[in-house]
Amino acid sequence: MESATPESPATAIAFERRPETYRHWKLSFEGPVATLAMDVQEDGGLRPDYRLKLNSYDLGVDIELADAIQRIRFEHPEVRAVVITSLKERVFCAGANIFMLRGSTHAWKVNFCKYTNETRLAIEDASAHSGIKFIAALNGICAGGGYELALACDEILLVDDGNSAVSLPETPLLGVLPGTGGLTRVVDKRKVRRDLADCFATIAEGVKGRRAVDWRLVDAVHPTSRFKEHVARRASELAAQSDRPRGEPGIALGPLDPVVTESAISYSAVQLELDRDKRVATLTVSGPTGPQPSTADGIVSMGDRFWPLRAFRELDDALLRLRFNEPAIGTVVVKTSGAAADVLALDATLLAHQDHWLVREIIHFMKRTLKRMDLTSRSFFALIEPGSCFAGSLFELALAADRSYMLDDPEQPNTIALSAMNGRSLTMSNGLTRLATRFLATPDVVAELLAGNEPFDGQAALDAGLVSFAPDELDWDDEVRLAIEGRAALSPDALTGMEANLRFAGPETMETKIFGRLTAWQNWIFIRPNAVGEKGALTSYGSQSRPEFDFGRT
Amino acid sequence: MESATPESPATAIAFERRPETYRHWKLSFEGPVATLAMDVQEDGGLRPDYRLKLNSYDLGVDIELADAIQRIRFEHPEVRAVVITSLKERVFCAGANIFMLRGSTHAWKVNFCKYTNETRLAIEDASAHSGIKFIAALNGICAGGGYELALACDEILLVDDGNSAVSLPETPLLGVLPGTGGLTRVVDKRKVRRDLADCFATIAEGVKGRRAVDWRLVDAVHPTSRFKEHVARRASELAAQSDRPRGEPGIALGPLDPVVTESAISYSAVQLELDRDKRVATLTVSGPTGPQPSTADGIVSMGDRFWPLRAFRELDDALLRLRFNEPAIGTVVVKTSGAAADVLALDATLLAHQDHWLVREIIHFMKRTLKRMDLTSRSFFALIEPGSCFAGSLFELALAADRSYMLDDPEQPNTIALSAMNGRSLTMSNGLTRLATRFLATPDVVAELLAGNEPFDGQAALDAGLVSFAPDELDWDDEVRLAIEGRAALSPDALTGMEANLRFAGPETMETKIFGRLTAWQNWIFIRPNAVGEKGALTSYGSQSRPEFDFGRT
Repeated sequence: MESATPESPATAIAFERRPETYRHWKLSFEGPVATLAMDVQEDGGLRPDYRLKLNSYDLGVDIELADAIQRIRFEHPEVRAVVITSLKERVFCAGANIFMLRGSTHAWKVNFCKYTNETRLAIEDASAHSGIKFIAALNGICAGGGYELALACDEILLVDDGNSAVSLPETPLLGVLPGTGGLTRVVDKRKVRRDLADCFATIAEGVKGRRAVDWRLVDAVHPTSRFKEHVARRASELAAQSDRPRGEPGIALGPLDPVVTESAISYSAVQLELDRDKRVATLTVSGPTGPQPSTADGIVSMGDRFWPLRAFRELDDALLRLRFNEPAIGTVVVKTSGAAADVLALDATLLAHQDHWLVREIIHFMKRTLKRMDLTSRSFFALIEPGSCFAGSLFELALAADRSYMLDDPEQPNTIALSAMNGRSLTMSNGLTRLATRFLATPDVVAELLAGNEPFDGQAALDAGLVSFAPDELDWDDEVRLAIEGRAALSPDALTGMEANLRFAGPETMETKIFGRLTAWQNWIFIRPNAVGEKGALTSYGSQSRPEFDFGRT
Repeated sequence: MESATPESPATAIAFERRPETYRHWKLSFEGPVATLAMDVQEDGGLRPDYRLKLNSYDLGVDIELADAIQRIRFEHPEVRAVVITSLKERVFCAGANIFMLRGSTHAWKVNFCKYTNETRLAIEDASAHSGIKFIAALNGICAGGGYELALACDEILLVDDGNSAVSLPETPLLGVLPGTGGLTRVVDKRKVRRDLADCFATIAEGVKGRRAVDWRLVDAVHPTSRFKEHVARRASELAAQSDRPRGEPGIALGPLDPVVTESAISYSAVQLELDRDKRVATLTVSGPTGPQPSTADGIVSMGDRFWPLRAFRELDDALLRLRFNEPAIGTVVVKTSGAAADVLALDATLLAHQDHWLVREIIHFMKRTLKRMDLTSRSFFALIEPGSCFAGSLFELALAADRSYMLDDPEQPNTIALSAMNGRSLTMSNGLTRLATRFLATPDVVAELLAGNEPFDGQAALDAGLVSFAPDELDWDDEVRLAIEGRAALSPDALTGMEANLRFAGPETMETKIFGRLTAWQNWIFIRPNAVGEKGALTSYGSQSRPEFDFGRT
């Protein structure tokens, strides 16, 4: 079912970028308005078998975009509006590169779409929580993933030049779905009527001008001569509504510099050890060490060395490397190491200053990283052992895990603890905290648990429903070993689907719709012969031959 | 990707059944309690290549179940509680037959799961709206689809005999997901903690006794000696809460007797014409003819000849035949024929008597049939032409369609009209009416439209947003023809996914989760080599060879 020549980049993907070396974007600043201009280098793809024409993109382009959004949040607190536009003539963005998709494995396509979805959601998160509004200034044709990027912005302005249209040509041209939340955002975010959305998503050439406004696909169209002026005006109007600080300096996000060996990736506070024979990784997060700041100024001074920011940046990077570079690792054992009291003290510091712009950014970043874990299609088993520090925000790792095992041995003190961070800040994609999702059946329990101040030993944690199992010393080794071995033996596809369904009980949001409903359909279509078979639409695109379909409906 | 020997039954499937000729269920009545006992005949499958051992089931078994639920609602208004149990020794139900699944095409598996899901939801609909409570009396092992049937009931009672367990062994044994809503109902309906659900869904042998209660998988366990007594007691307790009528006779649901030819299925009020060359069907619903009752007694007297019930039963049957017997028909043109005033008069009659038990059943059945249309993976285009009667409840057909085209010609009067039925009764799976879903962007419009009493001509309907397009006489033929031809040329898989994402904007419910998220993942897994490939788990089950997985995670 895979494409004839599936390829991944020959070397492992790294996810760190610096604006100075961006190849595809120009990031500039003018007072409270940042401009992020797309200028994709045709020969700058991650693989040599495609050229990134017409501002089409691959993962490398999106990694730079994600980096830019992140740096605007942390390094530029003065920015209150971001204009996303293009430096190409008459082209905003042609979407994900089709030849890249065609030459990619199924797993690569799926991971690529997941990552680009997370980047779009990071834009919406910045708009919802950081006082940064985004304008898509579509100064040329805007197709597929290009329009999906626009959909992630707060406003979409389209040039009215008789030619520039927005479009989702995936279904008519490629026989697949728009892969980055497009269908969901069209009907759920922009509330386009479903019959108009149906037409729109089947018209390869898209919709332009007045009709694009009437159908709610864009917010306004402006003639070429006045386009920049209108964009600038809306950017300053949106910037004026922001609550971001004035006159405060940002902090620099320095390189993470992990030590990468054949079997491990080691950061300052995170370690990922890989046992490829067993298809199991061990992910260990170490708690804070040394003195920690207790004031907002102290946090700003520490900058990217402040433990919560550093540890979660490292965790985020480790999860991404795991996803893209280690597809055969199916199970991840999650551990922590350190002093619970220190984690809890930092949680208290964070909450005491949560209205400070930087602390706000740190907390939302922790939240996004934990969401990245929820959305990582690997089985996570948390092992809670003596010397661990599953407390407060780090206990979220155990809550995010598919199961948790806690050693219950009176002779080896071993506890977990909650903090107020578990009660509201670190919400999942479904809009609930992990505690609220865990206790859907007994919602009152959440407040009771959060009101307590005592740590929980194994038996208490088990009784409270905070861990899955609490074996004693005698059973521990065997029970844990059998659980991990058993997991590693199951069908990876069935596990991916099972976890995607069990992890997000409770309410649905646009976010869970995108990752649940839309992604799943997209994955299905991405392995159907009508798309990727020898005569499928994705395979045939750009060649002389037309696709041939098996017209049986499923 | 299909299984080595995919097969569908050689003859077309018919969906009508009568209790007198059930092969797999015994339906009995004792006062307000009905008992539906599963006793699947091993040699009673729809195909000869599998045997339905241990109360495992195929589509034929589920068609009888759906028929029984329907007849209890219409023919037995005295029933207030239904006990679902088994006549087999020590076995409640082993779930969907694995050898049937293995020998089925991908499309058959998907349609089978969709139908069984709809049957489970019909049980929950009867519980929520008809005053009929369901008890799953698990008097033996209950695996996979058997447990999913139990999950659809209001209460699950399990015999505590040291052996009988509930289980979802699909992932560990077959490398697929439970196909009938199991994962969603475990965490969302029964609110089982996700880590316990994770364990449960990977333990092939399942969970029994006290632990099954502790994990919320069942409501109670009782020893064999007292099991029947406990079931009977709970059944009468639940029956006592019902608002169903006392001493009123039911109505008989007679056969539909369609005339089936090579190119058409003709019922009394519904006609389905098939153009297999063009892969297009025309579905025409004719409005009421002759005198109609205006009292509840009159409706009871007409029974199954009462037009709303008859027309929607025929529509339901036509949709099911289309799904299973006509996979290559990708586009359905929806038409109506008759007098709008007559439809509107019947809508008024229905609403005037909506608290009468039979009228209540009829309205909920109309609702379920329209949901069946929403969930049918074919493109529906409504054509609103002179002589049509897209009014009130029949206008729902246009609202359910992916697009609607209305002829706008001053010389040929052609109107649509709304009724109060469009305002509340006929909700979609997302819990909203089709009007509310259509106007998510401008919710106030719904009340304004419903308040008006005037019919809409083409231009007025277009202006109000009630139809997609209103071409004039000059453009009509070409525009409609091109739309239908264009649709029929697109990838059927991409259309299925696109429609599934566009049709259900707005809130999500357990129902939309099952059909969106869960079904899509299930479909994906159902075509993965790890399940259905030569060495996949589903292929290998029951043979000497163990499955071999590609362990790459997606």
